[in-house]
Amino acid sequence: MALYVHKYGGTSVGSIERIEAVADKVKSFRDRGDDVVVVLSAMSGETNRLIGLAKAIAADPDPREMDVLVSTGEQVTIALLCMALAKRDVPARSYTGSQVRILTDSAFSKARIQDIDTGKMRDDLAAGRVVVVAGFQGVDGEGNITTLGRGGSDTTGVALAAALKADECHIYTDVDGVYTTDPRVVGTARRLEKITFEEMLEMASLGSKVLQIRSVEFAGKYKVPLRVLSSMVDGPGTLITTEEDSIVEKPLISGIAFNRDEAKLTVVGVPDIPGVASRILGPVSRANIEVDMIVQNVAGDKTTDFTFTVHRNDYEKARTILEKVVVELGARECTGNNKIAKVSIVGVGMRSHAGVASSMFDALANENINIQMISTSEIKVSVVIAEKYLELAVRALHSSFNLDATDTVSE
Amino acid sequence: MALYVHKYGGTSVGSIERIEAVADKVKSFRDRGDDVVVVLSAMSGETNRLIGLAKAIAADPDPREMDVLVSTGEQVTIALLCMALAKRDVPARSYTGSQVRILTDSAFSKARIQDIDTGKMRDDLAAGRVVVVAGFQGVDGEGNITTLGRGGSDTTGVALAAALKADECHIYTDVDGVYTTDPRVVGTARRLEKITFEEMLEMASLGSKVLQIRSVEFAGKYKVPLRVLSSMVDGPGTLITTEEDSIVEKPLISGIAFNRDEAKLTVVGVPDIPGVASRILGPVSRANIEVDMIVQNVAGDKTTDFTFTVHRNDYEKARTILEKVVVELGARECTGNNKIAKVSIVGVGMRSHAGVASSMFDALANENINIQMISTSEIKVSVVIAEKYLELAVRALHSSFNLDATDTVSE
Repeated sequence: MALYVHKYGGTSVGSIERIEAVADKVKSFRDRGDDVVVVLSAMSGETNRLIGLAKAIAADPDPREMDVLVSTGEQVTIALLCMALAKRDVPARSYTGSQVRILTDSAFSKARIQDIDTGKMRDDLAAGRVVVVAGFQGVDGEGNITTLGRGGSDTTGVALAAALKADECHIYTDVDGVYTTDPRVVGTARRLEKITFEEMLEMASLGSKVLQIRSVEFAGKYKVPLRVLSSMVDGPGTLITTEEDSIVEKPLISGIAFNRDEAKLTVVGVPDIPGVASRILGPVSRANIEVDMIVQNVAGDKTTDFTFTVHRNDYEKARTILEKVVVELGARECTGNNKIAKVSIVGVGMRSHAGVASSMFDALANENINIQMISTSEIKVSVVIAEKYLELAVRALHSSFNLDATDTVSE
Repeated sequence: MALYVHKYGGTSVGSIERIEAVADKVKSFRDRGDDVVVVLSAMSGETNRLIGLAKAIAADPDPREMDVLVSTGEQVTIALLCMALAKRDVPARSYTGSQVRILTDSAFSKARIQDIDTGKMRDDLAAGRVVVVAGFQGVDGEGNITTLGRGGSDTTGVALAAALKADECHIYTDVDGVYTTDPRVVGTARRLEKITFEEMLEMASLGSKVLQIRSVEFAGKYKVPLRVLSSMVDGPGTLITTEEDSIVEKPLISGIAFNRDEAKLTVVGVPDIPGVASRILGPVSRANIEVDMIVQNVAGDKTTDFTFTVHRNDYEKARTILEKVVVELGARECTGNNKIAKVSIVGVGMRSHAGVASSMFDALANENINIQMISTSEIKVSVVIAEKYLELAVRALHSSFNLDATDTVSE
């Protein structure tokens, strides 16, 4: 008998039929003797409907009241699932974040979990009940309703699994696991049986939107085994774990991640003196523009070129800011390109293998794809290329690192 | 400076535009220096939408989960109103029933309020904030969400007014007050300036659906002055109060109530022996059929006729039950009529005036309307007549008791 935390996202509870299917899934675990704590998102579309109501009143609604409003979405689904479980003679009890209680700080709309009271949940489990908890929400020390921000239901699931010392946290989504890359781009992409938290973090932050980044960090920190599965079809999914040793074969590269939503900006001819980076990026970050890759090219003439990438939506705003910065710094000019894409290879295996980066550059060169920027970490190499070459680059890398399903390389 | 509790129903918060109008109304009270606690219902249609979701899963959904589900409706409106108030620079804070806290028993879907903690509300009022509370809901001693049943937002409003010792509780609806009778039936019906709790109870229970009965009982018990007003148009509305003395003129009759949804059943030729009434009504009430008027006619031949009224929807069910009772009791037969209506005159004035009932019978006789049943209380006389005469009877009584607006009788 094991204890599982199941988390179902908005699509998995998007209709009465889907909620009934979730009840069947939970019952199948109960029937074989497992204990289950379920974390639910709001029905798909519901959170946006609620936000729409608020935005119809005020462009920038009061954050405390916003959380009171949007937290109703999950409250609806937990009640409905308990009804569907009761219909199947599976005793169940629902809890809002406040009822559990999931104590958070008071940062409305982006609260952080501080403590979880497991008392009621343990009592219910001991009494043979399924516990159904509203994801994405908590309560602060004053009794105010808080939310953890978009995608926060994953975090709730992982946090409950950690607090309850669950055997596994299952994240049910509309995909059946984590793939070597996006199967829509590479037809031969393979589902991974296992992946490490670190790899998953790099995959997630680079555009594979299977899991919310914070939940993976949390799972890694508290060593909660995470499994990504489909709520539609049965299957083993992908297990995300710390135990690198348990991965029978360590391929060099676990997957190829990519992101189209990028734009790059370059301040050309910046005087090469200390403090320049902060004088360029300070105004950008004060405008709440998030910066991703940063590269400073060394030039010979006592000036330097400073390049960074931002979300494509922030491109024009960032450019306007940089025009002023160019004048202030006495730089030559500001150039930019919003038709770029980022491609990354990710794998813990590259730690112990030299030459992974050069294999990547070779594979791209063989396709005549020019590399505009390079950035590396211990388990990832990212390059920026022209957007039009994105699919070509991903397929070439997927094949050259032997990730294709038709290859004999096993997982 | 006064303290008001405002309660707005589902129609008054049925759209963003209506919520903005409520914010304007509340602001107008704040602007003149009054303190305001607002109680809100769910947006009209929302509670039915939520019930529809539950019914799609189970015909008889788990009551605890039903309350978790439907209580989200008010949680949405309190957040939206606070946003609309913030936009008008009126500081406000929302509370669910659980947050206040409004402590109830654990009778899900029909919970009764046991205690109200006024601490947070008083702090907010002292800090210059409007307090916005979700109507219709509370929390039991175990922390479970409860609801007070349909129309329970009125009760929340009155209970908060009692707990806070508010100067008045305003119930905003889609009508501008309590009328002498239904203006759709009698064009000359007048709005009453004042009416007593007792009269209002008789009016409410007899089909004038302006206020929920329990809230009027509650207001009477705790002597909370209630005012019924329109949320659409400004006006003084109708004050419901205990202070009969303050009513300058006491008309004999305050209003004419009526109800079309009745049916009557008669067991004919019942042996006139003790215990017969309970042997007739016992099986009816065990079938959860509510009985309204009961009349037992004395006959000379040691048998009696026993007549009572039920809701028209229960007519066939009650008839089937009585067929058996007739056999068991050795009664002659069971007759019935579901084309009847009940008309009542209501007024505290009749306590001290003889002959009110006979004036009523005279007025009906003048129109050749036959009276089928009569039932009286201290401040009301009800008669059952054929349904087709209903409008005629109401208009005749309205006129004969000098209630018409064109008359010179002032309120």
